[in-house]
Amino acid sequence: MASTLKTVDIHVENGYRVVIGGGLLAQCGQILADVVGLCHAAVIADSTVAPLYLGTVEQSLRDAGYCVSSYIYPAGEAQKNLTTLSDILEFLAAEHLTRTDCVIALGGGVCGDMAGFAAGCYLRGVRFVQLPTTLLAAVDSSVGGKTAVDLKGGKNLAGLFLQPSAVLCDTDCLSSLPPEIFADGAAEAIKTGVLSDEGLFRLFDTDNLTGDLSEMIHQCIAFKGRVVEDDEFDTGLRRTLNLGHTAGHAIEKCAKFTISHGHAVAIGMVIIARAAEKLGWCQESCADRIAAVLKRNALPVSTNFSAAELADAALSDKKRTGGTITLVVPEKIGTCCLKTIPVDQLQDVFEAGLEE
Amino acid sequence: MASTLKTVDIHVENGYRVVIGGGLLAQCGQILADVVGLCHAAVIADSTVAPLYLGTVEQSLRDAGYCVSSYIYPAGEAQKNLTTLSDILEFLAAEHLTRTDCVIALGGGVCGDMAGFAAGCYLRGVRFVQLPTTLLAAVDSSVGGKTAVDLKGGKNLAGLFLQPSAVLCDTDCLSSLPPEIFADGAAEAIKTGVLSDEGLFRLFDTDNLTGDLSEMIHQCIAFKGRVVEDDEFDTGLRRTLNLGHTAGHAIEKCAKFTISHGHAVAIGMVIIARAAEKLGWCQESCADRIAAVLKRNALPVSTNFSAAELADAALSDKKRTGGTITLVVPEKIGTCCLKTIPVDQLQDVFEAGLEE
Repeated sequence: MASTLKTVDIHVENGYRVVIGGGLLAQCGQILADVVGLCHAAVIADSTVAPLYLGTVEQSLRDAGYCVSSYIYPAGEAQKNLTTLSDILEFLAAEHLTRTDCVIALGGGVCGDMAGFAAGCYLRGVRFVQLPTTLLAAVDSSVGGKTAVDLKGGKNLAGLFLQPSAVLCDTDCLSSLPPEIFADGAAEAIKTGVLSDEGLFRLFDTDNLTGDLSEMIHQCIAFKGRVVEDDEFDTGLRRTLNLGHTAGHAIEKCAKFTISHGHAVAIGMVIIARAAEKLGWCQESCADRIAAVLKRNALPVSTNFSAAELADAALSDKKRTGGTITLVVPEKIGTCCLKTIPVDQLQDVFEAGLEE
Repeated sequence: MASTLKTVDIHVENGYRVVIGGGLLAQCGQILADVVGLCHAAVIADSTVAPLYLGTVEQSLRDAGYCVSSYIYPAGEAQKNLTTLSDILEFLAAEHLTRTDCVIALGGGVCGDMAGFAAGCYLRGVRFVQLPTTLLAAVDSSVGGKTAVDLKGGKNLAGLFLQPSAVLCDTDCLSSLPPEIFADGAAEAIKTGVLSDEGLFRLFDTDNLTGDLSEMIHQCIAFKGRVVEDDEFDTGLRRTLNLGHTAGHAIEKCAKFTISHGHAVAIGMVIIARAAEKLGWCQESCADRIAAVLKRNALPVSTNFSAAELADAALSDKKRTGGTITLVVPEKIGTCCLKTIPVDQLQDVFEAGLEE
């Protein structure tokens, strides 16, 4: 409670503030009262997160003067679908939320995606607050305004751009995460270091990352915020955030999503960094440094899928347009560029990236 | 084909043009090619409209160079739900529509509402075109950017604001509508006359309205366009469009939606106009004139529900906020005002409006 809070202001059309620090869940009521005003708050959480934090959040909201209703859905990636979205919408209707009320996502990326989508279409849009409880949600999904659910036809195919009214990132939730869940977030955070800042990258070259989580998260969100400010609706610059994602998504698909997103992106970063070296696209070799930092943070750096399998999976991806595909290529730690290649060269790139 | 086309430009953030005239469905391909460019077009229609017009639209789009896929859902208001929305989204995914493609709603208000909602959230938003085939859709729902589906908890509770890229209103579809469906649209059009223009109102004081449909629709859309331009996201002025809707929605609810929206709004207009006279809110008496024009257009002007029943139904409506309700009150034909009253006075207002 006594720790210093850090903030990042995101300057999009309806700008908002991200607050980072310890003990935030227990203070959420009083902080949100200043931002969204007192109203009826509908808290959405899954069956894993609810027993841990929902009581604290409800208490803080009620103490501040909010009317509070909560909806708990079954935990798991498989729940990120239109059926759960429909259940959340019916819950909001049954609780008679009005246009001036707000929806609060308490949880990881799946929760934020679904609660945000629901908030964006209930009564054609009510306010929305993110309380991320995983490192991945803290450094990545809670900022940027992308919400989505999976369709039978593919992941994240239906959703909205909806910027939250506030993001409160309580670092106390993060230090107690299971190691593999923490590592998932570390992968996206390390990606941010490779994209933006040698200094941030070096924060991960330690055996005790949890020591200064707040500073690391602050730097990650500040970078993502700048990218989102420049490209709120994901039409250009924001693609740089996809470092490691072309191969990463392909690995997830080939593994039928038994490998988590963060773990797949870790492998994807090593593949593209190695390919960049082999193909002369980078200023200085960085694949080994990236692989070393990923390993140190309990992340995988290789896959058994072949270049052909990965290329097939990647080319069915929704981000492809026409006959080319745009890759995010590390030039050195802290600097990446976009490189557009014909789709029929992708397999060769993966081939180069998979060689030791 | 040879008839002169009329146009209305709607100046919202992503502005668009409404084109009104005969033979437009058969020309839609070449017109849309100029507006949205050639792409993959997914046409959504219901099982009533598809046999009548889908062939013409598909042919025109293909002749212009579009790749065309079509999805037909079962006709009926009961289909306006998240299940049909989900089916449309899965269809778009199965057809591999990309962000640069477009969704075309061919049909009445239900089709526009659902296809628009689907277009607004598929890949977080693709382009959307309206081809209204009912008078109600032509004069009302196809312009304004409101999309929605019903929840179990109430009508239109989930949706988006999504302005179309173009609206092509083929008046040839309208002259062959079943009389009660035509009358539904006439009710909203007459409402527009009461709201905005004595001259428009007088167009309905005829036995052959279908003679100059194009001019009437043009005036209705031009008025709605101006209101939408001033209040794209329905936070104030747009409420004036709700003339007759407080009592109208209540009648629909009391009748368990066996009375259509247009018919209910017709009765609702008479109720509020009569109440305005009794309560001294209007400059000159207009209830009898409104009732006469509605009757001439095959619309009902009275209900057997009591003021108490209607007030109960109205006060569970989502548009109520706090302890007051805002009514749209006709001061004279062509001029209406907003009047906010305490909710406990609503029954008295209905009581006054139901007296002969």
